[in-house]
Amino acid sequence: MTFNAYAAKKAKAQLEPFRYEPKPLADDEVEIAISHCGICHSDVHLVDGEWGDWFPLVPGHEIVGTVVTGGAFAPGERVGVGWQRNSCGECEYCRAGEEVLCAKHEATCQGNFGGFADRIRVNERFAFRIPDGMPSETAAPLLCGGITVYTPLRTYAAKGSRVGVIGIGGLGHLALQFAKALGCEVTAFSRVAGKEADARRFGADHFFTGGPEKGSFDLVLNTAHAAPDMEAYLGALRPRGVFCQLGAAPLPLVVPSMPLITGSRSVAGSAIGSPAGIREMLALAAERGIAAMIELAPMREANQALDRTRRNQARYRMVLAK
Amino acid sequence: MTFNAYAAKKAKAQLEPFRYEPKPLADDEVEIAISHCGICHSDVHLVDGEWGDWFPLVPGHEIVGTVVTGGAFAPGERVGVGWQRNSCGECEYCRAGEEVLCAKHEATCQGNFGGFADRIRVNERFAFRIPDGMPSETAAPLLCGGITVYTPLRTYAAKGSRVGVIGIGGLGHLALQFAKALGCEVTAFSRVAGKEADARRFGADHFFTGGPEKGSFDLVLNTAHAAPDMEAYLGALRPRGVFCQLGAAPLPLVVPSMPLITGSRSVAGSAIGSPAGIREMLALAAERGIAAMIELAPMREANQALDRTRRNQARYRMVLAK
Repeated sequence: MTFNAYAAKKAKAQLEPFRYEPKPLADDEVEIAISHCGICHSDVHLVDGEWGDWFPLVPGHEIVGTVVTGGAFAPGERVGVGWQRNSCGECEYCRAGEEVLCAKHEATCQGNFGGFADRIRVNERFAFRIPDGMPSETAAPLLCGGITVYTPLRTYAAKGSRVGVIGIGGLGHLALQFAKALGCEVTAFSRVAGKEADARRFGADHFFTGGPEKGSFDLVLNTAHAAPDMEAYLGALRPRGVFCQLGAAPLPLVVPSMPLITGSRSVAGSAIGSPAGIREMLALAAERGIAAMIELAPMREANQALDRTRRNQARYRMVLAK
Repeated sequence: MTFNAYAAKKAKAQLEPFRYEPKPLADDEVEIAISHCGICHSDVHLVDGEWGDWFPLVPGHEIVGTVVTGGAFAPGERVGVGWQRNSCGECEYCRAGEEVLCAKHEATCQGNFGGFADRIRVNERFAFRIPDGMPSETAAPLLCGGITVYTPLRTYAAKGSRVGVIGIGGLGHLALQFAKALGCEVTAFSRVAGKEADARRFGADHFFTGGPEKGSFDLVLNTAHAAPDMEAYLGALRPRGVFCQLGAAPLPLVVPSMPLITGSRSVAGSAIGSPAGIREMLALAAERGIAAMIELAPMREANQALDRTRRNQARYRMVLAK
């Protein structure tokens, strides 16, 4: 049994064909024949060595494919896998359905070989049925990008909430769609004026290329890498409003204390989401026709595709196809 | 009708005797003969002009006294007043019992003449009965300092929570007592090794003069002015843990994004508390014998007392007495 993948052998190296023998299929594992894999900015961080020495590294954690064998699934069922592929299943977080917070969580492509491959094996609890009728290629980015924006929207916003989204890219374009579907009033912040038409199509009611001049946001999701003007964004939050950092930005947030204190505001982070959250997010996406806008590339062109993501050129998510 | 107070005429000026005519007593106001007034670091910020031009400025917002007339109170009842003296009473926040978030909230000594005086008039909703048996001089600091630490403890902690308190001063020494009374495991962080015995008496189970080497805190309350090592403190938070900023620090918090994201942690602010929270806090303090440790000074020595607070010399709160 050999799986065929693409791996970077060292930091910033080009991906090259890479074959590996998977560990024996455990009772609670499912083997998936991968048809599509989205490219997330985390893949760039990993390949570029910014998150440590995980080489040889097979990127990819926005996976859609069909079940070959194993787990509670029938062969041929279409499933997806996101950032997380396993957890201990026993700790307080796992028991509470917050597997992402488990100290023994396993990442799909950090310390394990990921989805730039023809097959993968993961714990069955982290494989999710893709709703019928949802195209595999636009479903793939939901498995990481989608749940990453959906979790804080469900945690900090509700129908009628005013939500700002900073950065209209892989995460941002999904955030606009989910915020709209949840009944929020949605504002997009982008440095690129040319994205306004797209942003409004994704669900933005308002679009600004500068920061917030004024506002009364319940929630601002930051999906951008550039350091935001925290004085301005915190000043635009309502009392008890939340600024939620989603992008793993290299620069720290410089947070003034007074707007935090006077309005009991907060700056939070959020990481992907729970299995239950992923199922709920997929169901809502199917019901409301939420889909990633993607550029499709064959997996053998993974290097060029990864580079488009690295340069923020993807409109709005690169997806590799078998 | 003339009230006798102490006022700073301009930024950083010495306080000097100041007489003013109060506005007519409104139907919903209570007039209080002030017996004690605590000194909070906010008074220093105000007198030093760091929070704007509010001069002539009568500081003081940790007031205890007896009712002269007005409101729902009987003459002679002992009441306290904190940072807030009024709110609109009609907005969504006031209706929800979150008067501190009201856009029209009125501060006791910012834009109004405060408690370094013989009398004051405030809205009756912001005067609180002092429990029988609680000394007025040690009750006074509870009205601002006490509720400031009690609110985040009630919001983010519970019995068994691990709580860290940075800075053992006016706020910190109350935070240790309330955290202990709420059943938390309490850690004190202070740069002053000599405070350990006091900190343990206030309720600290652990005491560190450095930052947190490791830890698993549910909540860290920052009452200090110095910029904290956010990498260290966020790293010492459990998943979903909260770092709560209470001191109005001049320097911003420099917040790395990764520990926020990977553990869904957050950095929050908190401002005083609601009238209901103040009543609850006073009742708990009475029940558990929680009291500020104070240095008492006559009000005519307000300048020297304010200076002790300015220099962080108070052990642990200055209180002026009539």
